[in-house]
Amino acid sequence: MLSTNNDSVGESTIRLMTRLANEYKALNLSQGVPSESPPWDMRLKLAWGVLNGMPLESASLEKKLLQNELVELIQNGPSGKLDQINQYSPPMGRADLRSAISEYYKRFYQYDVSPDEITVTLGATEAFASALRTLGRPGDNCVIIEPFHELYPNQCKIFYLQPVFVSLKATGSEWILDANELEEALKDAKMLLLNSPHNPTGKVFSRDELKAIVDLCLKHDVYIVTDEIYEHMCFDGTSHYVIPKEFPEIADRTLVCNSLGKSASATGWRLGWCLHPPHVSDTYRGIHDQMTVMSPHPVQYAAMHYFTLPDEFFQGLCRKYKERVRKLEGVLASVGFGIVSPQGAYYLFVDYTEVEKLNGKSCLEAAMYLLKEVGVACVPGDNFYGTIASKQAARHLRFAACRSPEDLDEATRRIQQHLGR
Amino acid sequence: MLSTNNDSVGESTIRLMTRLANEYKALNLSQGVPSESPPWDMRLKLAWGVLNGMPLESASLEKKLLQNELVELIQNGPSGKLDQINQYSPPMGRADLRSAISEYYKRFYQYDVSPDEITVTLGATEAFASALRTLGRPGDNCVIIEPFHELYPNQCKIFYLQPVFVSLKATGSEWILDANELEEALKDAKMLLLNSPHNPTGKVFSRDELKAIVDLCLKHDVYIVTDEIYEHMCFDGTSHYVIPKEFPEIADRTLVCNSLGKSASATGWRLGWCLHPPHVSDTYRGIHDQMTVMSPHPVQYAAMHYFTLPDEFFQGLCRKYKERVRKLEGVLASVGFGIVSPQGAYYLFVDYTEVEKLNGKSCLEAAMYLLKEVGVACVPGDNFYGTIASKQAARHLRFAACRSPEDLDEATRRIQQHLGR
Repeated sequence: MLSTNNDSVGESTIRLMTRLANEYKALNLSQGVPSESPPWDMRLKLAWGVLNGMPLESASLEKKLLQNELVELIQNGPSGKLDQINQYSPPMGRADLRSAISEYYKRFYQYDVSPDEITVTLGATEAFASALRTLGRPGDNCVIIEPFHELYPNQCKIFYLQPVFVSLKATGSEWILDANELEEALKDAKMLLLNSPHNPTGKVFSRDELKAIVDLCLKHDVYIVTDEIYEHMCFDGTSHYVIPKEFPEIADRTLVCNSLGKSASATGWRLGWCLHPPHVSDTYRGIHDQMTVMSPHPVQYAAMHYFTLPDEFFQGLCRKYKERVRKLEGVLASVGFGIVSPQGAYYLFVDYTEVEKLNGKSCLEAAMYLLKEVGVACVPGDNFYGTIASKQAARHLRFAACRSPEDLDEATRRIQQHLGR
Repeated sequence: MLSTNNDSVGESTIRLMTRLANEYKALNLSQGVPSESPPWDMRLKLAWGVLNGMPLESASLEKKLLQNELVELIQNGPSGKLDQINQYSPPMGRADLRSAISEYYKRFYQYDVSPDEITVTLGATEAFASALRTLGRPGDNCVIIEPFHELYPNQCKIFYLQPVFVSLKATGSEWILDANELEEALKDAKMLLLNSPHNPTGKVFSRDELKAIVDLCLKHDVYIVTDEIYEHMCFDGTSHYVIPKEFPEIADRTLVCNSLGKSASATGWRLGWCLHPPHVSDTYRGIHDQMTVMSPHPVQYAAMHYFTLPDEFFQGLCRKYKERVRKLEGVLASVGFGIVSPQGAYYLFVDYTEVEKLNGKSCLEAAMYLLKEVGVACVPGDNFYGTIASKQAARHLRFAACRSPEDLDEATRRIQQHLGR
């Protein structure tokens, strides 16, 4: 009778590798956590919200002004004013924040989405969990594209959904999804989980590929739940498409999940959002509310700053991560890793089986060799596959290229020294 | 095929009343949200963490020092130092925070709980959700004591658990649980959800009452999940007991959920925790991790301050809320509400049926009368009951007495003016 749900919803393997990286003092290229801090002004806004309890009276975000006001506030001590920002917000998120998110979709995608169809969540993770619970009942099939972020099948377990896997195959210079395999999986499915730009491969689904997926989902009455946290990291002319905007025919069965964690270098803040069609809004918000109440209010207040950052910020983000990906890609290729060049995101999912010192090893053995002998932590590739057969067939490791240039330089040195031919 | 999970996990009624309060410009005594701000030093620490990215080098929390350092930091601008606090923490929470929580249980309860058995959560709400999912499988019976916080049956719905209700009965000066009724419910149950100090009645379960409950749970192999967010608000010689400390015989099947939201006047911060026995730790942390990742890191950093606040802070909290409860209690009694005097928490759950102007009305009608005619928002009592029969029998309204003295004075004036005899 002391048994519990031992259905192996375990701790994240990615975070486990981070712990091992610390233990072995390895450079941590396992977890996709930025080296940089969030934008300074956004941090100042958070400090202001927490200390003042109410929004800035002037909407001005002119940095010097906010700095001065904040210094004055700290020197004067607590104001005794009404406190709003340290207390509950509406569970679906501050109205001004949801408006800012709506404006953001107009700016970047010419997509007109009502704040009523936006819920602010505790990161993309909770946005995704609430989406799965909103749409799926126990036993419902949920199509997951391999390789995948471990979150997807684990959240399926939490809500008793049945994952059905289809595989991206590396064919020379591309990762390709087989349309027949996908259609077979969609036939009895309730939803498809779609991540683009894709973690771990760096694939950016093209408009044509998305159109084919959308048509199959429409044909078989399948919902789409997207994970778009790398939306701004599309390289070399590829573009990100928001499905309900680009394919309005499926807008009423698409839930878009996103977060500012990666783009604003604020993975610790827990601020995400979901765009949901009107007919699921009440259910979605009810589940979000009863499971977590809301995203932390001071973070919501500060997050408004993110959505109004200038275009240059987002372009710079893309440029920065592209440089880092290409740099690490070059090094890994030079020592024999097999690489399909990423089109976006900031990971390298590379075939290690032609690297002399890793040849013949399992994914975990290869990753542990890198951790202990090379001093670089990465994630074993089988972690991104769902069936025993596909796990055994895995021949990849995932490296996160989002770390600082200094870290990447040091990783380069270590990789070349230990694995170079 | 466009159907979703329309099993009525709706928005919180309590938060709906807050929205109506704003709409009708009524004094909001519906939601249990404090009027005050979190302690200033705790807010300074949050600001420091966000702006500096790393902990204070000196552990000193001497206010002036932190203020000065913070001012200097803001004036100098971003340091470019390694950023820890704006990024992911370990999903189970910062190690130093979990140690601080462990010390806190030693201080207040002489309870020696290992940081390995503590997980930091997104408020008590997520602590509770993760506990329910850790212990229960679809269809499992979950015993809920009426009247209850609406969260409990809604979280049961989310995880497909079957609520079974037992009722506290008002007998003169006490709310009493019938042991036979409880035992009947526990016979086929997986877990009991226990809230003390109790929302909405203000009951503080005595040691003898808890002992009887524990014995029944042991007899029928039932887990206990507690909600202890009002732990510091026990009046007039009543005490709060932490079950795994007080009754070690049931420690291996008790999960303790708590939060600093109410005690630190920081309901918007989303910081809670769960104490879980070792044999469920991995499952609990896995579910917490995959559902939400973690509590916001800057909040975790600042929260350490809470656990080291002096005893006087917690005593003052108790005194403050007792004063407010007694004040509102006197006013409500004077106009004819039937009251079982609360022993703790900060709510009044009062029988309105002898109040002349509310007599004959349903709970909702009575609450709407108070909202529109009196200008005071409260929560209709049927919201705290689970079956149609018990909802129909409900004759109570819940008032939150946690608001500022000014608000309570104004509420007093309005109640006396409109309902006075």
